[in-house]
Amino acid sequence: MRSMNLVDLWAQQACLVFNQTLSYKSFNGFMKIPLKNSKINPKLNKKRPFSPLTVSAIATTKEDERIEAAQTEEPFNFKIYVTEKAISVNKALDEAIIVKEPHVIHEAMRYSLLAGGKRVRPMLCLAACELVGGNQENAMAAACAVEMIHTMSLIHDDLPCMDNDDLRRGKPTNHKIYGEDVAVLAGDSLLAFAFEHIVNSTAGVTPSRIVGAVAELAKSIGTEGLVAGQVADIKCTGNASVSLETLEFIHVHKTAALLESSVVLGAILGGGTNVEVEKLRRFARCIGLLFQVVDDILDVTKSSEELGKTAGKDLVVDKTTYPKLLGLEKAKEFAAELNREAKQQLEGFDSRKAAPLIALADYIAYRDN
Amino acid sequence: MRSMNLVDLWAQQACLVFNQTLSYKSFNGFMKIPLKNSKINPKLNKKRPFSPLTVSAIATTKEDERIEAAQTEEPFNFKIYVTEKAISVNKALDEAIIVKEPHVIHEAMRYSLLAGGKRVRPMLCLAACELVGGNQENAMAAACAVEMIHTMSLIHDDLPCMDNDDLRRGKPTNHKIYGEDVAVLAGDSLLAFAFEHIVNSTAGVTPSRIVGAVAELAKSIGTEGLVAGQVADIKCTGNASVSLETLEFIHVHKTAALLESSVVLGAILGGGTNVEVEKLRRFARCIGLLFQVVDDILDVTKSSEELGKTAGKDLVVDKTTYPKLLGLEKAKEFAAELNREAKQQLEGFDSRKAAPLIALADYIAYRDN
Repeated sequence: MRSMNLVDLWAQQACLVFNQTLSYKSFNGFMKIPLKNSKINPKLNKKRPFSPLTVSAIATTKEDERIEAAQTEEPFNFKIYVTEKAISVNKALDEAIIVKEPHVIHEAMRYSLLAGGKRVRPMLCLAACELVGGNQENAMAAACAVEMIHTMSLIHDDLPCMDNDDLRRGKPTNHKIYGEDVAVLAGDSLLAFAFEHIVNSTAGVTPSRIVGAVAELAKSIGTEGLVAGQVADIKCTGNASVSLETLEFIHVHKTAALLESSVVLGAILGGGTNVEVEKLRRFARCIGLLFQVVDDILDVTKSSEELGKTAGKDLVVDKTTYPKLLGLEKAKEFAAELNREAKQQLEGFDSRKAAPLIALADYIAYRDN
Repeated sequence: MRSMNLVDLWAQQACLVFNQTLSYKSFNGFMKIPLKNSKINPKLNKKRPFSPLTVSAIATTKEDERIEAAQTEEPFNFKIYVTEKAISVNKALDEAIIVKEPHVIHEAMRYSLLAGGKRVRPMLCLAACELVGGNQENAMAAACAVEMIHTMSLIHDDLPCMDNDDLRRGKPTNHKIYGEDVAVLAGDSLLAFAFEHIVNSTAGVTPSRIVGAVAELAKSIGTEGLVAGQVADIKCTGNASVSLETLEFIHVHKTAALLESSVVLGAILGGGTNVEVEKLRRFARCIGLLFQVVDDILDVTKSSEELGKTAGKDLVVDKTTYPKLLGLEKAKEFAAELNREAKQQLEGFDSRKAAPLIALADYIAYRDN
């Protein structure tokens, strides 16, 4: 089976990539925000001038006016954005699940949930929420929920009856520490708690939008999401004659579904219109598939040393890739088309608020490993 | 670990018990509805005069008046009630999950979900809904959802890393047919789909009540419900010095939590007031614990032949019981107190609509095996 945390690599690498001057070619004139940022202004971090919360506030003082002016002048700083959001999400996750009786199950849940994931899905959720005019509090519970679902899928995926992995994020997998029985139950309780957390801890959102968010999240987990992708993957492992249709089915369900859900939950809970929600859904579908296509391209264009260890392991198990099915050039064209299509969905939104999602799409398209 | 489907026995046996004249002593004068019914009037089944839907309809014709008169004269027929509800629930479950790609996961979900369970939890859900003035459509999705959660817990409980059971409801367990990997995923997808089904298929209920139902169901699954009970049970198995406090923790979480959730979901979705919901919550807590206390009493007062095979197996594994901890007489007093307390919660409700829940409490208290 393919690793489920390929997408996590982007944030880890983004911190390096976005501190360098990028020589990328934009496919879309809409993307006008400079991404290069060789030196980070330490004042930015203190004042948090690019927080969408600040952007959406009504300026009434000279200090506010100065902040607004700074926002106009300064480029979007992806590294600061990623760092700040990760800190907020980690704090919220830490507070969401506390250790109580029975201790072992709460410890098992926290062990994997707080094991240092890059919080890609929560960031997508928060960015989408803020893009449509919501604030972080509207979507933080949902942001935690999508990370709980992601963690649950990793715990169950690592079980001996599935991938039988001993290591995850550089640490022993959940069942190696707590036993298989507790690992199964830790996954189950994370799955259930994700829903409990959304409905109990979402702030400032109408019940009908919360109901919509629950429906969206649930769909991304079951037989139209993660589970469908994993099952199809299990059945294909070792089969060299997998069709393009099957390959896309696996990626769309196993990788893209929860990414899509993360974005759509944020858009729903942030107060997005139906049109906005559907635009962001299409954006998420594009970047979800884009990630996998680029991953496959890198596999044949880069040396093994340049690629992540986990990706290499997966590709040994199952050699079906987009370059193999389409040819390298067609695969690259497909990736370019997906990136173009993703960005098109963000046209019409406030370009400053769209910056995090645009930066993500570009990173995925132009990463080196 | 103890079996999780002990409660299911009641419906199977109730059909026999309620066709006989019961020599029970009621602990509460409130219980005035005759339970004995040696002969079933075949016309009742055709006209369905005791359907709560019919009861709540406004009588405008002579036919309606005749039905109303019949309702006044005829006793509540528990067997017809159980049979009709089981048929409705099975139909709804069958329609809720259809086989599509990937076939194997849908087949695995349906295999266990439609394996002939007694639908105790769905019946509790529907009965509570109708008791507070709702109709079956308000709670049918939730009734299916609680059965999906129950089935999920059985699939995961039967896994080799948990109880390692080969048989369930007289058929090979899910993992024996589909493999451990698919069984884990079938449980996961049933868990997620339960929430999806409630939010997408509940009819005629406000979003805020649906949000309340989701919160209630989620709580009953995770570390304050099923999972907590299972974990505590795992950690106690083989330990002969389990305290009364721990024993109650296991039963309250592993057995009573989902029963409570089933009743409370019905009450919320049926439009119950907060007072009604909390009364029914207390009712459910009482019958959940009552079931286990009576089960333990029967274990020491009845021969092995009179007891169910599964119960016998569980008791061999873990000998801690209420009679052992309290003594037989005190355990019987505790059971009587629980039954009394359960029925007290139903005072003030329409006695005809309360009949199914009252019949259930009495069956649990006075069953023979």
